[in-house]
Parts: sequence; C-alpha cells; structure tokens
Amino acid sequence: MKSQKSRPGEIFAPTDPELTARDANLIFIGRICSPWKQISDCPKNLVQARDRGIPARVELDPPWRQGLLGIERFSHIILLHWLHEAQRNLIVQSPSHAPEPSGVFSLRSPVRPNPISFAAVRVLSIDQKTGRIDIDAIDCLDETPLLDIKPYMASTDSIPDAAN
Amino acid sequence: MKSQKSRPGEIFAPTDPELTARDANLIFIGRICSPWKQISDCPKNLVQARDRGIPARVELDPPWRQGLLGIERFSHIILLHWLHEAQRNLIVQSPSHAPEPSGVFSLRSPVRPNPISFAAVRVLSIDQKTGRIDIDAIDCLDETPLLDIKPYMASTDSIPDAAN
Repeated sequence: MKSQKSRPGEIFAPTDPELTARDANLIFIGRICSPWKQISDCPKNLVQARDRGIPARVELDPPWRQGLLGIERFSHIILLHWLHEAQRNLIVQSPSHAPEPSGVFSLRSPVRPNPISFAAVRVLSIDQKTGRIDIDAIDCLDETPLLDIKPYMASTDSIPDAAN
Repeated sequence: MKSQKSRPGEIFAPTDPELTARDANLIFIGRICSPWKQISDCPKNLVQARDRGIPARVELDPPWRQGLLGIERFSHIILLHWLHEAQRNLIVQSPSHAPEPSGVFSLRSPVRPNPISFAAVRVLSIDQKTGRIDIDAIDCLDETPLLDIKPYMASTDSIPDAAN
C-alpha cells in the first residue's frame, strides 16, 4: 500500500481509488525512459523539463508496434502515461509553490483519482521496428508505464489564448 | 463481449486488451452528458462538434466535487474520458475518410488499446456544489464515463505550429 501523506489544508476523498477502483482495466503498452530516477530529481512540469535540455524516449512493446504506421506525419504527439507511484485519494492539495490549497482538478499534480498524465511532446525520431520514439523532453520518472500515444492536432488541441 | 468488427486492410493485435488488461484499475468519477445518443449521431472530432454549435456538460460525482476548488481560474479544461463502447484490439485501422490504413497511434480513433479520449474544451460555467460544468462542445456519446479533469495550460499544452 502507498503511503498516505498529506500537508496542512489538504482533504482526503471519502474513498481511496487505490483500494476501490474497479470500473475499467488498463493495459501497459510500453514505458517512458527518462533521466529522472527519483521524485526529487523530477521536473515539476514540461516547461522545467525542457529548460533542462535533456531528451527522453518512449519504448513501445512488440504487440503494439504496427500501431505506429503513419505516425511520421506528425511533428508532435500526445503521451498518456500511468503515474504508478502516485497516491489517488487527495482531492484538495497544498502544493509547496502555492499560497493556498487547490482542488485536484485545478492542479496538474500527479496525485489524482486516476493518475494519468498528459504530455504533448516533440518527436525527434521514430523507429517503428524497435518501437523506439525519441522525444524532446518529459517530466515523469524513468520506467513510467505508457497507456496511449495520439497524434497532436493543432486544430483542436492548441488553444494559445487559454487563460489562467 | 464487444463485436469484433474490422474493415479491409485492418490488423488485429495479437492479444485483446478487452480480455487481458489487468495492469491498473480505473475509477469513474462522473460522466459527460452530450446530445449524441448513438455513434451514428456523434461528431467525428471536436472541430465537427463545435461546428454544430451545441454545448454539453460534465457531471462530477459527489465524492470528488471538492476537487473543483480553484478551477474557475481557468478558461479551458482537459477532459479524459473512457470510451466504454470501443473495441480495443485493432492496431492498424482503415478510417472511412482516409485512402490508406493507419496505425492506431497516428489516429484519434476511439478504438485503441486503452480507449481514453482527450478533449480540450472551453468552460462556460461551473457549479462546484452540484458538480456540474457546462462546456462549449464535445465529440463523445452521452453518458461517457469521466476519468479526469485537468486545467489546460497554454505554456505546455498549446503548440500552434504542430504539423501534420
């Protein structure tokens, strides 16, 4: 069982998905290989990861490699990955960088009911035969399980004037 | 069991995640309410959905509503949802709109090993108490299970010059 950490001001959900989640099942289709071996090394977000200037790679397992057919048409891809080390039961969180607690759905924290991370990254190279995709940067731990790869479509995915 | 449909040129994965996925478990935290009751009604993507000019809404279940704290700061949110009616075993697909088959990872098809959909949508209104979020448009079926809500961050999520 994962440790049940919390900071002042944080609120636990009434049930812990770590123990009760049964609604649907995921399959891990590969992994993300990053330079970050421990949470303390890990950039907090993709901006920080890019600032460090160190690329990363995706390894897709053999059964899924034919699924890369045609992906060379896209300059950027979306990665969905499973943050396997994250707690799932903190619905209000107090990030160290913020003055006040926030709800999980207004944070990009790895701690969430379904700890799925989303990253839009630039493709550096693809080898369909070995299932290897080199990418410009990533902000997750080495060996993070991969759930999905999608082509990034600027027409729907890019909202330059989104406000916060 | 879901029907095992395929078109000419399509390739099945060697195993079907519908039967074998056991790597991690999801919890459904709410649902998306859309005007689209059947797959034949459903827009193919968010551009088509927006063209129809009909808004949609998200309903977050009671245990998770405190997680909306602070979300009013964001003009746009990311929705991750579970395409519960989608097959999971077609790794090469022949979309009706395309001249040639493509790998699943170069398509935004609902049919994928982990049928998680990603949509970046505009928030029209939020009621934290009832867990209701009105959004500008969506391209999924009514009653699609919700997995996550994230704030859209233009600094990392918007790539206007992404090519395809």
